[in-house]
Amino acid sequence: MLKQCRSLLSRSLQSAKWGDGFESRAAYSTSLQDFAATGNANGRVFAPYTIYKGKASLSISPVLPTFVKMDSDIGGLKVNRRGSMMLTFCPAIGERKYDWEQRQKFALSPTEVGSLISMGAHDASEFFHDPSMKSSNAGQVSKKLCIKALDGGNGYLISLTVTNNILKSNERFNIPVTTAEFAVLKTACSFALPHIMGWDRLTNQSPKGIKGSPSKVNSKQHFDLEWDR
Amino acid sequence: MLKQCRSLLSRSLQSAKWGDGFESRAAYSTSLQDFAATGNANGRVFAPYTIYKGKASLSISPVLPTFVKMDSDIGGLKVNRRGSMMLTFCPAIGERKYDWEQRQKFALSPTEVGSLISMGAHDASEFFHDPSMKSSNAGQVSKKLCIKALDGGNGYLISLTVTNNILKSNERFNIPVTTAEFAVLKTACSFALPHIMGWDRLTNQSPKGIKGSPSKVNSKQHFDLEWDR
Amino acid sequence: MLKQCRSLLSRSLQSAKWGDGFESRAAYSTSLQDFAATGNANGRVFAPYTIYKGKASLSISPVLPTFVKMDSDIGGLKVNRRGSMMLTFCPAIGERKYDWEQRQKFALSPTEVGSLISMGAHDASEFFHDPSMKSSNAGQVSKKLCIKALDGGNGYLISLTVTNNILKSNERFNIPVTTAEFAVLKTACSFALPHIMGWDRLTNQSPKGIKGSPSKVNSKQHFDLEWDR
Amino acid sequence: MLKQCRSLLSRSLQSAKWGDGFESRAAYSTSLQDFAATGNANGRVFAPYTIYKGKASLSISPVLPTFVKMDSDIGGLKVNRRGSMMLTFCPAIGERKYDWEQRQKFALSPTEVGSLISMGAHDASEFFHDPSMKSSNAGQVSKKLCIKALDGGNGYLISLTVTNNILKSNERFNIPVTTAEFAVLKTACSFALPHIMGWDRLTNQSPKGIKGSPSKVNSKQHFDLEWDR
Repeated sequence: MLKQCRSLLSRSLQSAKWGDGFESRAAYSTSLQDFAATGNANGRVFAPYTIYKGKASLSISPVLPTFVKMDSDIGGLKVNRRGSMMLTFCPAIGERKYDWEQRQKFALSPTEVGSLISMGAHDASEFFHDPSMKSSNAGQVSKKLCIKALDGGNGYLISLTVTNNILKSNERFNIPVTTAEFAVLKTACSFALPHIMGWDRLTNQSPKGIKGSPSKVNSKQHFDLEWDR
Repeated sequence: MLKQCRSLLSRSLQSAKWGDGFESRAAYSTSLQDFAATGNANGRVFAPYTIYKGKASLSISPVLPTFVKMDSDIGGLKVNRRGSMMLTFCPAIGERKYDWEQRQKFALSPTEVGSLISMGAHDASEFFHDPSMKSSNAGQVSKKLCIKALDGGNGYLISLTVTNNILKSNERFNIPVTTAEFAVLKTACSFALPHIMGWDRLTNQSPKGIKGSPSKVNSKQHFDLEWDR
Repeated sequence: MLKQCRSLLSRSLQSAKWGDGFESRAAYSTSLQDFAATGNANGRVFAPYTIYKGKASLSISPVLPTFVKMDSDIGGLKVNRRGSMMLTFCPAIGERKYDWEQRQKFALSPTEVGSLISMGAHDASEFFHDPSMKSSNAGQVSKKLCIKALDGGNGYLISLTVTNNILKSNERFNIPVTTAEFAVLKTACSFALPHIMGWDRLTNQSPKGIKGSPSKVNSKQHFDLEWDR
Repeated sequence: MLKQCRSLLSRSLQSAKWGDGFESRAAYSTSLQDFAATGNANGRVFAPYTIYKGKASLSISPVLPTFVKMDSDIGGLKVNRRGSMMLTFCPAIGERKYDWEQRQKFALSPTEVGSLISMGAHDASEFFHDPSMKSSNAGQVSKKLCIKALDGGNGYLISLTVTNNILKSNERFNIPVTTAEFAVLKTACSFALPHIMGWDRLTNQSPKGIKGSPSKVNSKQHFDLEWDR
């Protein structure tokens, strides 16, 4: 039991490390039943919040976590892939025209979202992602997201730099964001944070659960108690 | 594919521009299947928060977005018409009587809501809407909403001015709002913001989604990954 | 149409006036179909947040609004009786014993809740309710709720005074509240505010609404548009 | 009736006292029908937010309340066991390996959660739990949770000390938490607070409630009114 628990922990430790990229995680996804949080693709809803500026556009949209059935005798579901806030940058290729094919993405982890929503009017945040971290390709491609308050506390600059050392390319997107737009980002990200963490699944919303057959307090529920060991 | 994506983007760009008015947007609504977010009119709920003052009343109520089915092979739904916070002003026509027929409306976009909820005790915001923007009738009718902190940080004045250059008319509504009433506006608008953005549709609320048939990680889900190109 | 709209407005104006007491409102409740928000009494959930202190206890619990079907051709539901945050005070009658029979209640309206949740560490709020306001019995019984920051910004004193001029009685409840307990009150009241306003009914939660039969944009939906007159 | 109400109050008073531990509460749980909030164990979702540091890990997860049917003629459900925010500490036993078997738990009550979410950048909070409080074993085992802002307002230190006076053991877990991680804790705890209080069950979410058979205002609903005595 100890060993299994340890492996569960180190596995979730892996998924907690965001620099890992998703490839390494996909490796063990295939051995688990992976449920899309919203059932199937047909049920998906696309409602990004998009900021259109002169040089580029920035869309932000929550990506929900996926869950897997637990094999243990407790049953239930646990998070397989953590959710994120997906930022998508598109370069402008004409007046009010943005090129989706040249988009670059940056997925904010829950903790990075915590960083964003706790920013004051004069703060700055930087995040570095490396898709090949800890593989032999580490350092070949890197992404840097920078959120910086503008002088005078009058809005923010959000910029993404994608450096590809193989292609010798360096892309940069700059999005000036007004105080009002940033308030939308903070409010919407605060709303979305519990959802991308999967905590909305923990709530009492389903009234059927309680109308079902009564169940005595059983030993499994002691799992929840502070004094169980 | 590039072209279609571009046209999707520039179409949503149009709907993102609030000064456009709704007429221009209606033009392409007819060519799409448009679902009311709440199903049909019978299911609608009216629960405005109304502030009654001597010269006028102000009601505020969220307007939910509408969705359309996506034609692409990904399936799913996307926002067709963005939601808004609808402000409705009625002039007083006697003691505690307000004339609904003479009402004037002002629909705050998500970003304008962000502006409202980020206002401090000494701030001011102004919003301008032109129903005929970018048409030959531009400038004929214009609406200006002004939210201004009162001296001493003791509440706000919300005023709407509607100028009609053809009728040579100029209507003005003034609503003094207490700190407590403004706290309700901010809290209720913060609550409503993710809903008018359509983000409440993105959540894990439906437990059926996960109890349905298991689905392997498939290529469509890679759409969500940061490193998909 | 004008007359009906006016009467709707002045009727909701009445229910918006909290000093009126509930008696006057009950007068027209009987002529309308009144739905309990939670269906029937069996479905009700009691989960008050209670603060137990030496002289008295204070329980706080949201009371949901009730809705009525609208008679107009638009259909839908509208709020009949506004929700509130119900504060219930019980005097202590022994160590850790509180007398529910001697309880006194105070129902905070949405705007009064706005006042509470916007209180800073050094603020004070006072609310006066008269159950017989505007009747011949006005002034016979009155209730005063006072929320006051303690010196040093180290918590609050919540006190209720009920004065009955006929019985010549004067009851007073004092509840010292810690900063942590007040944080729970503010967070829980902020959560509950949209619910007591009925705004949680306005959301997109029901996925069935959108999977139903598609409906074209129709004239009734223009009701929502900013430019409909 | 008075007596029953008193006993209900003093019973819930007991469960409101968090130092009691859960043993004493379990004593009366067996005499009541106890429903798990999420139906059965199979429906449970595990989505802790975990912070991995060099010496230990900290997982935080909401524990929902349980409800019991009320025996009174009013019907409905009331909270049996309050929910909590469960903090689980595991010691590191190697690089990125944490020993679940040596975990220690600390369950934050709603009021303790209120303390956490109201902490400023320079504040500190301490909580003491004794599983045997008010029994003859009081003082044998005690737990102390300490949350302290780091100098410079640059994050927090969360530490748990478990002292066992019988085993003469003293365990201590130290978790340095960044500002971003603490923002996630505050936001997620603020989201979870109404849920662990059971207030999410009080909302209007279920649309079936209102579509059911209409019910006149009845005497039971007067229970909700401010002026019912």
